[in-house]
Amino acid sequence: MQDFFKLISSAELLSLFDRFFPLEQEQIPLQRARQRVLAQDVVSTEALPPFSRSTMDGYAVRAGDTFGCSEAEAALLTVVGEIAMGAPGQALTLGPGQAARIWTGGELPHKADAVVMVEYTQPFGADSVALFRPVAPGENVIHAGEDYAPGDTILTKDSRLRPQDIGLLSGLGCATVPVYRQPRVAILSTGDELVPVEETPPPGKIRDINSASLAALVEEAGGIPITCGICGDDFAQLQAISTKALAEADVLLLSGGSSVGKRDFTLRVLSSIPQAQVLAHGVSIRPGKPTILAAQGNKALIGLPGHVASAMVVFYLFVRPLLRRYSGLSTTLGLQRIQARTGQQIVSAIGREDYVRVRLAYTQSGELPLAWPVYGKSGLLSHLVRADGLLPIGRDMEGLDSGVETSVYLFP
Amino acid sequence: MQDFFKLISSAELLSLFDRFFPLEQEQIPLQRARQRVLAQDVVSTEALPPFSRSTMDGYAVRAGDTFGCSEAEAALLTVVGEIAMGAPGQALTLGPGQAARIWTGGELPHKADAVVMVEYTQPFGADSVALFRPVAPGENVIHAGEDYAPGDTILTKDSRLRPQDIGLLSGLGCATVPVYRQPRVAILSTGDELVPVEETPPPGKIRDINSASLAALVEEAGGIPITCGICGDDFAQLQAISTKALAEADVLLLSGGSSVGKRDFTLRVLSSIPQAQVLAHGVSIRPGKPTILAAQGNKALIGLPGHVASAMVVFYLFVRPLLRRYSGLSTTLGLQRIQARTGQQIVSAIGREDYVRVRLAYTQSGELPLAWPVYGKSGLLSHLVRADGLLPIGRDMEGLDSGVETSVYLFP
Repeated sequence: MQDFFKLISSAELLSLFDRFFPLEQEQIPLQRARQRVLAQDVVSTEALPPFSRSTMDGYAVRAGDTFGCSEAEAALLTVVGEIAMGAPGQALTLGPGQAARIWTGGELPHKADAVVMVEYTQPFGADSVALFRPVAPGENVIHAGEDYAPGDTILTKDSRLRPQDIGLLSGLGCATVPVYRQPRVAILSTGDELVPVEETPPPGKIRDINSASLAALVEEAGGIPITCGICGDDFAQLQAISTKALAEADVLLLSGGSSVGKRDFTLRVLSSIPQAQVLAHGVSIRPGKPTILAAQGNKALIGLPGHVASAMVVFYLFVRPLLRRYSGLSTTLGLQRIQARTGQQIVSAIGREDYVRVRLAYTQSGELPLAWPVYGKSGLLSHLVRADGLLPIGRDMEGLDSGVETSVYLFP
Repeated sequence: MQDFFKLISSAELLSLFDRFFPLEQEQIPLQRARQRVLAQDVVSTEALPPFSRSTMDGYAVRAGDTFGCSEAEAALLTVVGEIAMGAPGQALTLGPGQAARIWTGGELPHKADAVVMVEYTQPFGADSVALFRPVAPGENVIHAGEDYAPGDTILTKDSRLRPQDIGLLSGLGCATVPVYRQPRVAILSTGDELVPVEETPPPGKIRDINSASLAALVEEAGGIPITCGICGDDFAQLQAISTKALAEADVLLLSGGSSVGKRDFTLRVLSSIPQAQVLAHGVSIRPGKPTILAAQGNKALIGLPGHVASAMVVFYLFVRPLLRRYSGLSTTLGLQRIQARTGQQIVSAIGREDYVRVRLAYTQSGELPLAWPVYGKSGLLSHLVRADGLLPIGRDMEGLDSGVETSVYLFP
């Protein structure tokens, strides 16, 4: 096991995710469906709106009866009724020369095809109304099915539900929706040096940071975190806890193995889990080189770098795309990418992708923000706390000059 | 009440929010603090890391003992011990010419000031090690307090907690954090024409869309939605339900009053609620003109336009900034703003701000996306479902030419 890192590129690691598939679907109540991903196309079984509706307060008319009227020469129609809100408008039929009082959202009477706004009308006598503006057929009307007709695909499989989508599903009576199950992610921090957050670490020990930050990252990416606590550097114990955790989870995140010794230890543990197969160990990126990927059927086992900042960057670069894949989304970072300009020269190395933590400074409106690198050892957290996002520098680049336009992935 | 709209600008409406204040603070467990907003600065009471740590597997040394060594001429040090992971390194003192085996994350022994990577060493005899590269003092070491020293402000009041911030708080032993209480938002759909999602609407009636879409929007903005169901157009009943809802909530959202008649009705209801004061009715924006704002102490009452699409746009423009204010954030949209290029000419009107729903089309990498307007009557939903964001056109503009660079607010 004392062999050298077999480094692959980040693109090669991402391509290994092809072997994992979206999780099975489940039917959930619409109220809990925000941000979930549709596992099937949703096809409308009804028209939306279900009937032709007025978009104004006014009078429903047969448009032809208003042609030619004006302020100077009103059209005079007989008012044969009022369509109360929520009342069946089609129960009333308009004959030639007839009108009905109607309100915004009301159902048009039978044979009516337009609405004259109340502002252009005046009651005339006991049962008539004077109209001062002509309307074209369809004016101030939303037609039945104008939004969606029966048989229309209203939302497509693999799309994440936003508030407007929830509203639409609600309008069509979809009280439950078919979505992919959310990935369950077991998080296990390893290391004899770790104590839980609540404890004061004795000399030589430190508090576990990865459990809390990874749980927040999993939640943020749409997964369900299952924190498994801390496990010391004991092979048998770590193997047993990992195997058990994986039985209940779709993904196992092991953190703590950044050094060569620990990395090999994590690698041995992951290799020893029944049916698990190591797919990659070592990625040519900085930070994040000692990342390990293994698979057990459709489950993924990931050994994260031990350094807290590296573990978080690796989460954004690899675990997040993997969780998206399990959720039915594209296997991409899913982070907002913006254009920025480097605030200073940034040095990188050929043959390695760099993900530089940067802070953004907005200057004048309309100008690109300046991206300033926030340097810090990968064992520190302050640079990640001060950063707004990651600036990637490709493996064929020696760095970026100051003032160059480039892309930055924003932390969510 | 048959007076004309007294229109104010969106900036004027937002400035009325100055009278509302962030909600009181509460102490919550760190595990539930993601996305919550700190109500106090957090000051470190400890050093992070608490002791000087090795960042490599190797040998802890006194750097001076390595000066001048090379591949050709090794420095030979006596190995006086090994610092096991989690063991108190400072219990061991290095004398001149001495070294100690150490692992990544281990505590440096007393008097050690650097670490030589294991790759540049070779065991020599029973208790010595040969070093082939010199190290400078501090090399491969993170010093005690290098991330944060006691007394450092590590996170500031009014900042939203991200995963890296949660990790940091965890590292410093903050098992609970002081955050602003989340705003509770009562949502009440009004109208005799509405039936709940689960029902099949009889002729003339439609399903309630706003309850579901507004609840999703509230959740998305960090608030707690309290859906109050549907209330018919009955003054006494609506007044009673609103008063009761407001007793338990910080914000009341009434939707359903888009037409002149309904708007006046909503206005009368809001005016009649004890201690409520109407601050604005009518905003010179499209969509969203019939928006109403009232206050009852630090609570806000908002009459949303009845048209579903208008209600959602008004939520993004006004309710979202208001919820951000209650949560301790800046009174801004809080939406990601990107630069785009108009795909076609977009017409607007002088004296009114337009918020055009647009769909973005990404072309070549590095080029601005094209923003294509998605038109549709405000009573329809399909245009919002097809849109990626809002393109604002100022009140002094007649529109935008095709191919012009402009800003777009992305839906979250």
